[in-house]
Amino acid sequence: MYAFSAPTFTRMLKNLSAMLKKAEAHAKDKGIDPATFLAAKLAPDMFALTRQVQIATDHAKGAMARLAGQAPEAIEDTEASFADLQARIAKVLAIVEGFKPEQLAGSETREVSVKIPNAELKFSGIDYLNTWALPNFYFHVTAAYAILRNCGVELGKRDFLMS
Amino acid sequence: MYAFSAPTFTRMLKNLSAMLKKAEAHAKDKGIDPATFLAAKLAPDMFALTRQVQIATDHAKGAMARLAGQAPEAIEDTEASFADLQARIAKVLAIVEGFKPEQLAGSETREVSVKIPNAELKFSGIDYLNTWALPNFYFHVTAAYAILRNCGVELGKRDFLMS
Repeated sequence: MYAFSAPTFTRMLKNLSAMLKKAEAHAKDKGIDPATFLAAKLAPDMFALTRQVQIATDHAKGAMARLAGQAPEAIEDTEASFADLQARIAKVLAIVEGFKPEQLAGSETREVSVKIPNAELKFSGIDYLNTWALPNFYFHVTAAYAILRNCGVELGKRDFLMS
Repeated sequence: MYAFSAPTFTRMLKNLSAMLKKAEAHAKDKGIDPATFLAAKLAPDMFALTRQVQIATDHAKGAMARLAGQAPEAIEDTEASFADLQARIAKVLAIVEGFKPEQLAGSETREVSVKIPNAELKFSGIDYLNTWALPNFYFHVTAAYAILRNCGVELGKRDFLMS
């Protein structure tokens, strides 16, 4: 379970951090207000870039904690700049890297519950990881990438896969 | 390895199929030429919807075959309609479902090589799955979702996670 969670979160969060650095540099080069990128969306009722980063990081830290039988550490959603988003990613990277493989031993059968608006989802650990945490995590990292590409930031698939 | 691959490909391909059905119905309802959606992109140098579906399905069938020590079955990229894309997804679903868990036993250490333009990548099976096949697969399914949302198709995260 550790091999299918922590290294993925770590690698993709580092890639996300590198993509956001390129986006910030692009904004500076072109004289674009960085807030334009932070508020950018792909559809009026989709989340903006800042929220995509917040949710991606929440799934990473949430998965590691829940699979280890702990309550996820709360982080307030107050980021208002690229620097704030980088700080959040760094904080979550440290949380993910703080878990040891043995803490997730046997977590495939651990009962995991997740509260969503108006409901509580219950999973086995392996179903939680494969049908909730990983698809949601990848969704929001990809959405962040797609928003930046849609804004004209020069990124390629390589930036998504490896930083 | 099977538990972290086949069920994910199967579930997400079914979700992708359902999302494409909603997109086709939306086009019909609004009198939009379906080809508009098939050719839609999020950036001029990103792939259009049809290509996103082709690549997502390629990663699913490629991963199952390579992890089982087989050459992936080739499918020509000739789809020109929603019906064609549904047929491709159905074909790949049948391929994925044709693999048995025992065929992937021990595949975490199997050497997997993937040819990309101008290079050949070599991975252990587990690194191939976690750092190549799954991130690429999720990337292209999410890109398809994001293209459709950007086109105004009424989809939500629930469509991405469960069909």
